[in-house]
Amino acid sequence: MSYDPSTFRGLTFYDARDAFRDGADTPRAYLERCMEAVAAREPVVQAFAHLNEAASRAAADESTARWQAGRPLSPIDGMPIGIKDLLETRDMPTEMNCAGLQGNFPKKDNAAVRALREAGAVIFGKTVTAELGGSHPGPTTNPFDPARTPGGSSSGSAAAVAAGMMPAAIGTQVGGSIIRPAGYCGNIALKPTQGAINRGERQATSMSTHGVHANAFEDMWQVAYEIAARVGGDPGKRALNGPPAAPAAAKPEVLIVLETAGWAGLDSQTIDAFELLLERLAAAGVRLLRRATSPEASRLEDAIAEATRICVQITGWENRWGNRNLADIGQGAISDRALAVLEAAERMTPAEYQATLVDRAATQAAHEDIGPVADAAISLSCPGPAPLWPGDSAGAALVRRPTGDAVFNYPSSMLFAPVVTTPMISVGSMPVGVQLIGMQHQDARMAALGRWMREYIPPVVA
Amino acid sequence: MSYDPSTFRGLTFYDARDAFRDGADTPRAYLERCMEAVAAREPVVQAFAHLNEAASRAAADESTARWQAGRPLSPIDGMPIGIKDLLETRDMPTEMNCAGLQGNFPKKDNAAVRALREAGAVIFGKTVTAELGGSHPGPTTNPFDPARTPGGSSSGSAAAVAAGMMPAAIGTQVGGSIIRPAGYCGNIALKPTQGAINRGERQATSMSTHGVHANAFEDMWQVAYEIAARVGGDPGKRALNGPPAAPAAAKPEVLIVLETAGWAGLDSQTIDAFELLLERLAAAGVRLLRRATSPEASRLEDAIAEATRICVQITGWENRWGNRNLADIGQGAISDRALAVLEAAERMTPAEYQATLVDRAATQAAHEDIGPVADAAISLSCPGPAPLWPGDSAGAALVRRPTGDAVFNYPSSMLFAPVVTTPMISVGSMPVGVQLIGMQHQDARMAALGRWMREYIPPVVA
Repeated sequence: MSYDPSTFRGLTFYDARDAFRDGADTPRAYLERCMEAVAAREPVVQAFAHLNEAASRAAADESTARWQAGRPLSPIDGMPIGIKDLLETRDMPTEMNCAGLQGNFPKKDNAAVRALREAGAVIFGKTVTAELGGSHPGPTTNPFDPARTPGGSSSGSAAAVAAGMMPAAIGTQVGGSIIRPAGYCGNIALKPTQGAINRGERQATSMSTHGVHANAFEDMWQVAYEIAARVGGDPGKRALNGPPAAPAAAKPEVLIVLETAGWAGLDSQTIDAFELLLERLAAAGVRLLRRATSPEASRLEDAIAEATRICVQITGWENRWGNRNLADIGQGAISDRALAVLEAAERMTPAEYQATLVDRAATQAAHEDIGPVADAAISLSCPGPAPLWPGDSAGAALVRRPTGDAVFNYPSSMLFAPVVTTPMISVGSMPVGVQLIGMQHQDARMAALGRWMREYIPPVVA
Repeated sequence: MSYDPSTFRGLTFYDARDAFRDGADTPRAYLERCMEAVAAREPVVQAFAHLNEAASRAAADESTARWQAGRPLSPIDGMPIGIKDLLETRDMPTEMNCAGLQGNFPKKDNAAVRALREAGAVIFGKTVTAELGGSHPGPTTNPFDPARTPGGSSSGSAAAVAAGMMPAAIGTQVGGSIIRPAGYCGNIALKPTQGAINRGERQATSMSTHGVHANAFEDMWQVAYEIAARVGGDPGKRALNGPPAAPAAAKPEVLIVLETAGWAGLDSQTIDAFELLLERLAAAGVRLLRRATSPEASRLEDAIAEATRICVQITGWENRWGNRNLADIGQGAISDRALAVLEAAERMTPAEYQATLVDRAATQAAHEDIGPVADAAISLSCPGPAPLWPGDSAGAALVRRPTGDAVFNYPSSMLFAPVVTTPMISVGSMPVGVQLIGMQHQDARMAALGRWMREYIPPVVA
């Protein structure tokens, strides 16, 4: 399953709709093809926590009838879609890959899940998450090399979309949980502006979002749009802005190249590939602002230099109460990895948390000030190709980042900024995503710029 | 049980601590006295959804040992406290007075409940809420007249504190659910700045808060402080500011008198009583700004004139997804009152919600602009004394506001402003609270001003 970004064609949905309309294809037949892919790939990829086959078939049949009657509920009517197993779904358990939540079955729908049902989407299954959306991995493997992580925490959503088991899936990100696995798995994905997609019952952290993994800009945008059109953004927040279908490709005039924290640890193949991509962008007429020559790029990098600390502290504190409730269930209710994070958070004081919020606000102010000099910032979505992950060894110290490092994702999470990742690079036959980071509420613009890059810039195979 | 604000002395805790220290009294004995009050009053008042007698006795014994060892965990160690039955508690069900949630027992602690336990407080019971924090009443009656409502939705918290069953209770407010029942029951209560006390799992609405019902400023402030000192504010929000013990009384120099919506419906006894109170404030040297003579007071009143519509629309929309999940359980899972609110919210579009958020932001900007001209705004906490509530009649149309009208509370909720209510008036032997509304994060200042009013201005008996 070696990967080449110039030839890989993932499963898409937008291009199946014409055949639904004229009867040459049906949502039910589309679903059955997804099920065949699951049968073929799932034993190794292990992307699903739960599959809802009977309900999916019933929903696909209803969708088939609507398309045949010429009355689909939306452009994603009949789309099989996976839901990260952090979100509640009324017809499947929500276990979050956490021992303390085995059997948890609230029989409720997350607001975004309800929106998808109302749009006619087929809620196909729950996808594996790293435990509680953190760093302790589930069983999912990278579809392009089972010895490697798919990334996390939206492991199953990224892998299932890459493996052709479905055309789109919902992921969530606090630090780097959508864009990193999407980058490792060659997805096209959106981490929207903070608050732009209603998180329903998942409001515990101030910097998490729902987002979309897909294989095409058309599908990615449509799923995000259909959710926001029905359930809006988070309470009190501005909902996703943008057109009712994927924005057309738009060429960026100026991009800030981000080379902040994490750059020093990159392998030379990845660096060379990214530099080659930048050359191709420059050759196409895109002006690049880099820290060596642009004072503004340099200032922005300085402003976000503390992103890892800021994100880890804020998120640790905000997850503290929920995770302590789980830990108190008893030994083993949460993993040792999660317990270590919890205990670090429990050493923080409210004043330290408050001070870190002040730090975060300062970075957002700097971004608001400097960011508009460019159309977007560009960087890698992940630090090179997905790392090998042989699993924990009994008795050995815990590997710190089994699903990879979110170092390239913390800045945009901290900035509440919209991000689109596009599969533009392969290194050693593994995908490496490239991200475009925008100003808040420029989600549609990032989709347009990413689409342009995908359509007009040859990807780099290293 | 007729009420007179000049003679009523509710149960307090702060003044029992010296006796805990010297052994003349113990938290266990204090708790037993609370239990005697429950035995005497609860059959009529019906303030509790659940009582946790055995666990409370055990916690009080542990507290007794700490005081006797000279090592209390906080100034509220041993305080019996009631928790509104919207908040999760690991040792009691959380049923929210909702048929669809009967038996709901998540075995988790809300962040504020955890903080109270860590401060040594005795989690005495769950207090009755109007269904889901809305307008459909529970069985609780007003402790000063069982034919009247205690107000809602923090019905049990307000009533239990007024009836001497415990010295403090946690309430919550979205529209008027702390300050109104506190006003009807003669409590001293705090509705803090939006976000200032961590709501834990209850983050679904953008304008709800946890708050404190008590009979003394010392207890009210201490409970709020001890929670915020341990679990801070909501994710991403500034936590409660202020000193580690109740602020001293402070005299206001200037108050804006709010006479906006709701004034026209007041009975003449209440208006006359409030005017007499204002005369007493003026006589004490407080300058009053009123719409008839102050352009700034007039502008502020104009800016908040739409508070009821704005609060009802925003909250209806934000509760929509959670309440639809409950309604879908089946017929009768939520009340007809709640269903009517839900169905109205389901007729809203995301764009209408977004527009109402814009309206809300405009009112906050006006308050930020005008508010600092005075130390606070002053108004009634409730539209006169608690109304009679004979219960619903079979076949008749539903009474619209069985727990009273929140018309005097919507402005401060919409403004995210801190509010302290003080029992300064009685009308027909029933309490009527008077509220002071501050700028965001001036919570401690409102407590200081309220305390001054309570200590230096004779209450009005009408």
